[in-house]
Amino acid sequence: MTTLGVFDSGFGGLTVLRALLPQLPGARFLYLGDTARLPYGAKSQATIARYAVESARFLESQGSQHLVIACNTATALALDDIRAAVTIPVTGVIEPVVAMSNKNFPAADTLILATNATVESHSYRDHCLRAGLHPTEKACPLLVPLIEEGWIDHPVTREVLRIYLAEALELCSPLLVILGCTHYPLIAPLVKETLLALGCDAAVVDSAEVTAQAVAAQVKRDLTPTSSTAPASFACYATDSVEKFRRLGSHFLGQPIPAVNLLDLGG
Amino acid sequence: MTTLGVFDSGFGGLTVLRALLPQLPGARFLYLGDTARLPYGAKSQATIARYAVESARFLESQGSQHLVIACNTATALALDDIRAAVTIPVTGVIEPVVAMSNKNFPAADTLILATNATVESHSYRDHCLRAGLHPTEKACPLLVPLIEEGWIDHPVTREVLRIYLAEALELCSPLLVILGCTHYPLIAPLVKETLLALGCDAAVVDSAEVTAQAVAAQVKRDLTPTSSTAPASFACYATDSVEKFRRLGSHFLGQPIPAVNLLDLGG
Repeated sequence: MTTLGVFDSGFGGLTVLRALLPQLPGARFLYLGDTARLPYGAKSQATIARYAVESARFLESQGSQHLVIACNTATALALDDIRAAVTIPVTGVIEPVVAMSNKNFPAADTLILATNATVESHSYRDHCLRAGLHPTEKACPLLVPLIEEGWIDHPVTREVLRIYLAEALELCSPLLVILGCTHYPLIAPLVKETLLALGCDAAVVDSAEVTAQAVAAQVKRDLTPTSSTAPASFACYATDSVEKFRRLGSHFLGQPIPAVNLLDLGG
Repeated sequence: MTTLGVFDSGFGGLTVLRALLPQLPGARFLYLGDTARLPYGAKSQATIARYAVESARFLESQGSQHLVIACNTATALALDDIRAAVTIPVTGVIEPVVAMSNKNFPAADTLILATNATVESHSYRDHCLRAGLHPTEKACPLLVPLIEEGWIDHPVTREVLRIYLAEALELCSPLLVILGCTHYPLIAPLVKETLLALGCDAAVVDSAEVTAQAVAAQVKRDLTPTSSTAPASFACYATDSVEKFRRLGSHFLGQPIPAVNLLDLGG
């Protein structure tokens, strides 16, 4: 059976798992949310790399044959460290999104919405520049707390988005808007609406969906294909607050999470 | 020289240090923000207690004669563990506020605004009930991110406060509103205004100010009084992102922070 590890600092990466499940029937997914140490967004590169490497090693030790870093901050700040620390292929959420964006919209003006830490790493900007896209980055630090409050289709979230997007559109006229945080797929329709209301008809790219497609393609190429038609299965690990993970995580996964295993990574 | 340790998960507790400085001329303050592991708000009791005890021991080892837990979450969830782990007196932010509140407004209906973790601990509720106050707790998880975004006097913050306070005022008619988070003093005027706009003339209690008064009174009673008229001095330690601590912390302290020492608590 094909086993994949999926890692995030919290439960946001469950939007990536949600996109992966229908892509790989019969596969087994191990999802690890390092909730005791979230959010990674405000921490330094060295700290994030140390945390992410510990989690990656755990998922490899549990039999994962491919690792998905379903966390924009960890991808931006720790992908090289993770690749050096494990022996299995590792896919982050940035490279597939940038590759697909440039394939469909070559050299396009591109707006990247992300957390403070992802923006400050300039990892999206650098990948976009190397691919030939013209990037503008916009930090949106209030969106994660608003989504975690459950204010998904809420006047306050609309107003915060309007403020952030209006500020960004003063700096660029994008053809493409990348949702550079795994929480953001939950407000993708609101982002599209708000862009239209501001006179911008850019395509909105969901990094969870694009990453899942890239991972599925690589796994089907690299690993023994299973001819299973059984649905993919998953097991969840969290380093803290399994009850909160179960409750909030279900919204991100789009289905109930029956059980969460508590894991002590010792930090 | 009298040395006091002040501990918080981040820089919010600098509002307590700000209130302490003028109360104890000549004293030396050691402030530790455990920024590598913030926010404590979403973590479990066991994790928070472990983190807080490590920080408390560090401050004691550096010569602190009195320890102030300038963090509502750590006070609510770890005060007993901290007291058991050190040999110096420890003051949290909850007991002084509840004692003062009941002295000035005996048996009053009291509304407590706090983070999710503080509310879920019900520590304020239990202390209020024991003192004879009639408490209602209201979790306000978006206020910390809004304050850290710098949206102090901002229409979105006003609207979020209006929503939270209107929900709370459906449940109670308080004479007293306790700001049960060390970030909230920065929006104290906005809380008062919003309450008035909703027809509530409750007194707003700043837990930072009240805690500082209680600590100063106890220190003057317990320790050799210094007759110094020199201003109090302070040194800051953070477990991550000293630059962010310096930049954001200055708003909370109300004065520039010249230097921050990076501290590794190993986790």
